[in-house]
Amino acid sequence: MFEVQPCSAINPPHRLLMGPGPINADPRVLRAMSSQLIGQYDPVMTGYMNEVMALYRGVFRTENQWTMLVDGTSRAGIEAILLSAIRPGDKVLVPVFGRFGHLLCEIARRCRADVHTIDVPWGEVFSAQQIEDAIKRVKPRLLLTVQGDTSTTMLQPLQEWGEICRRHGVLFYTDATASLGGNVLETDAWGLDAVSAGLQKCLGGPSGSSPITLSAEMEAVIRARKCVEQGIRTGDHQDGEDEMIWSNYFDLGMVMDYWGPERLNHHTEATSMLFAARECARIMLEEGMDNLIARHELHGRAMLNGIQGMGLEVFGDIRHKMNNVLGVVIPAGVHGEEVRQRLLNDFHIEIGTSFGPLAGKIWRIGTMGYNARKDCVLQTLTALEAVLNRLGFATTQGAAMQAAWDTYEG
Amino acid sequence: MFEVQPCSAINPPHRLLMGPGPINADPRVLRAMSSQLIGQYDPVMTGYMNEVMALYRGVFRTENQWTMLVDGTSRAGIEAILLSAIRPGDKVLVPVFGRFGHLLCEIARRCRADVHTIDVPWGEVFSAQQIEDAIKRVKPRLLLTVQGDTSTTMLQPLQEWGEICRRHGVLFYTDATASLGGNVLETDAWGLDAVSAGLQKCLGGPSGSSPITLSAEMEAVIRARKCVEQGIRTGDHQDGEDEMIWSNYFDLGMVMDYWGPERLNHHTEATSMLFAARECARIMLEEGMDNLIARHELHGRAMLNGIQGMGLEVFGDIRHKMNNVLGVVIPAGVHGEEVRQRLLNDFHIEIGTSFGPLAGKIWRIGTMGYNARKDCVLQTLTALEAVLNRLGFATTQGAAMQAAWDTYEG
Repeated sequence: MFEVQPCSAINPPHRLLMGPGPINADPRVLRAMSSQLIGQYDPVMTGYMNEVMALYRGVFRTENQWTMLVDGTSRAGIEAILLSAIRPGDKVLVPVFGRFGHLLCEIARRCRADVHTIDVPWGEVFSAQQIEDAIKRVKPRLLLTVQGDTSTTMLQPLQEWGEICRRHGVLFYTDATASLGGNVLETDAWGLDAVSAGLQKCLGGPSGSSPITLSAEMEAVIRARKCVEQGIRTGDHQDGEDEMIWSNYFDLGMVMDYWGPERLNHHTEATSMLFAARECARIMLEEGMDNLIARHELHGRAMLNGIQGMGLEVFGDIRHKMNNVLGVVIPAGVHGEEVRQRLLNDFHIEIGTSFGPLAGKIWRIGTMGYNARKDCVLQTLTALEAVLNRLGFATTQGAAMQAAWDTYEG
Repeated sequence: MFEVQPCSAINPPHRLLMGPGPINADPRVLRAMSSQLIGQYDPVMTGYMNEVMALYRGVFRTENQWTMLVDGTSRAGIEAILLSAIRPGDKVLVPVFGRFGHLLCEIARRCRADVHTIDVPWGEVFSAQQIEDAIKRVKPRLLLTVQGDTSTTMLQPLQEWGEICRRHGVLFYTDATASLGGNVLETDAWGLDAVSAGLQKCLGGPSGSSPITLSAEMEAVIRARKCVEQGIRTGDHQDGEDEMIWSNYFDLGMVMDYWGPERLNHHTEATSMLFAARECARIMLEEGMDNLIARHELHGRAMLNGIQGMGLEVFGDIRHKMNNVLGVVIPAGVHGEEVRQRLLNDFHIEIGTSFGPLAGKIWRIGTMGYNARKDCVLQTLTALEAVLNRLGFATTQGAAMQAAWDTYEG
């Protein structure tokens, strides 16, 4: 009974992950994760936690005290912020320009928010005027958006939104999972009240830890919902005046008290993922955020030029494309999944498929994090061209490579 | 602006973690985590996911199809089960015999449950009769308990509870984070509808992934609350007849559809933590669950005999002690924290402090997972004795070691 087939130690094949993420982790991050554990209240551990807070302030470009990790995937970071900020019945506005806008609506609905949306066609972004008009009409308590939506490859300009939100008394949140590190994000300068991310895109780590940052205004909103956990409650803890947060794991008030000087016991910190998150930030800041973003811009441009050089069409308004991911229109007569299978099976290169209205219509090719490198771009272009040729699609032979090289040497 | 002090790669000191967990990870688990990533829909990855399901069926001793991971710490696993199973207003019964019973109440309250408790003094456990009486009185929809509560070191016998629950139409859940692998747990034979765990105790891994298992009855309860995510909704998905689950991340219906043959996109699986969880289960089953539990019993008994041999008193009803953790009464005149500091700073050995009514009264010493070993037991006993002597507490010199050796050689 309950007999399980014996299986051997993990031994994944080498893959070059050139989809919209996850991508290959930087080997330094993998090595950091293989460090032996220490106790969760060991002074070395709490020291690492403080370093993580400082490092991610640099990554998020903020002076926010509450810059820390949620122990879960990037979706956990989104839900922690939404559950902590949204009181049931609160009006929220979500500008939807791809799949992940729908996800914010979905999570907000689970927070019992009164969800209002505005839409643009997939492949486009919003103007600041559209946002201000919608805010005037809806009068939301929170504006929820993603900065980059990998489903469409679009990067929503957010520079002006914070000022609009301030004028109308709206809290401003963005998910930056897909964009952070590969595109400019200025938490403080853009007036963001909360940002969440993940390690598995431009940060060069594995999924499973979600860096977040919260403004003082957002902190106040969350503190007003304070509800001290039974079992560690003592006489000097007082609950807040607002409706409690309907989750314990995602109660960011508790997470702050755990990361803050109180060190009030909450979850048991996911130490190996914290080591990974720390190393991701450390190597990003060692490179410098500006250099890191410039690297994503360069390799993204080389991929774009290579794809166009091959005679393929790219998807969406490329003036607003994220640096780190490109939508490629699957040419007529080519079976998109067959190309992906060939790339995976014969070259061990993974590129992405698509969702919803774009399913079967585009591939998504990433150049991000550890894989924002010349060799990755050139290998992917040559392999893709070879597969397309094998399947009978004629390219301008070698033009992709020349265009990519020109980008690097131009 | 946002200048961050440069910091070096992670380099934690060696620690021997002999507290109530987390403990040192098995080096094989750390190595598994340092494997390079693969794509989340790569057939190799979905193959690993299926292996994880099969392996944890062996660990949980169940034939439950839905045996999988929640991407977060053990607390995330608890909350996922409670949020998915408890509809707002549902009556739940929680037998509280330590801090983690209070935690279940706290999380259930966040699920808007109508929470009822029964209590025994810390250091004791419940009789089956007490549970049946309370079920008759309260008439709950769910019985929520922990199997082992590290705050008191007690192991609650659960063998008879499933049958009682069946007779009264109650769903039966236990958290087994602290106990699984070190003590017998029979999911199917004991009639459990849901069990959750974590890697950081007897499983020998890091915190950050929560293995869970769900019975067919529990699956039906969760499926009745189905609500398909916006953005991946298509014509052939139908919502269930019961109130939706008020979380997206912890909606186990969605997690089942992600782990199941549908592979419906949900979170991005935390690949490195999945590698860790797989390796934990693989090495547990390689040793054999019976052997693993016997090893915890042996080293737990050696630690107990050593501590008593030293002239120290142990805490609680030791007939019901977990194999993997021991409460040691801090002797009069000894400053408990000073001892812990000395052990940590001079020997790099960590033992645990306590919570709530036991704060300052007992230490908690673990012998679990990778650290359920003779060398760990002997090193801890000799170091503790030396520190106690240094601080002026007279032990029967050497008796601890003899008692421990006798356990091993008797």
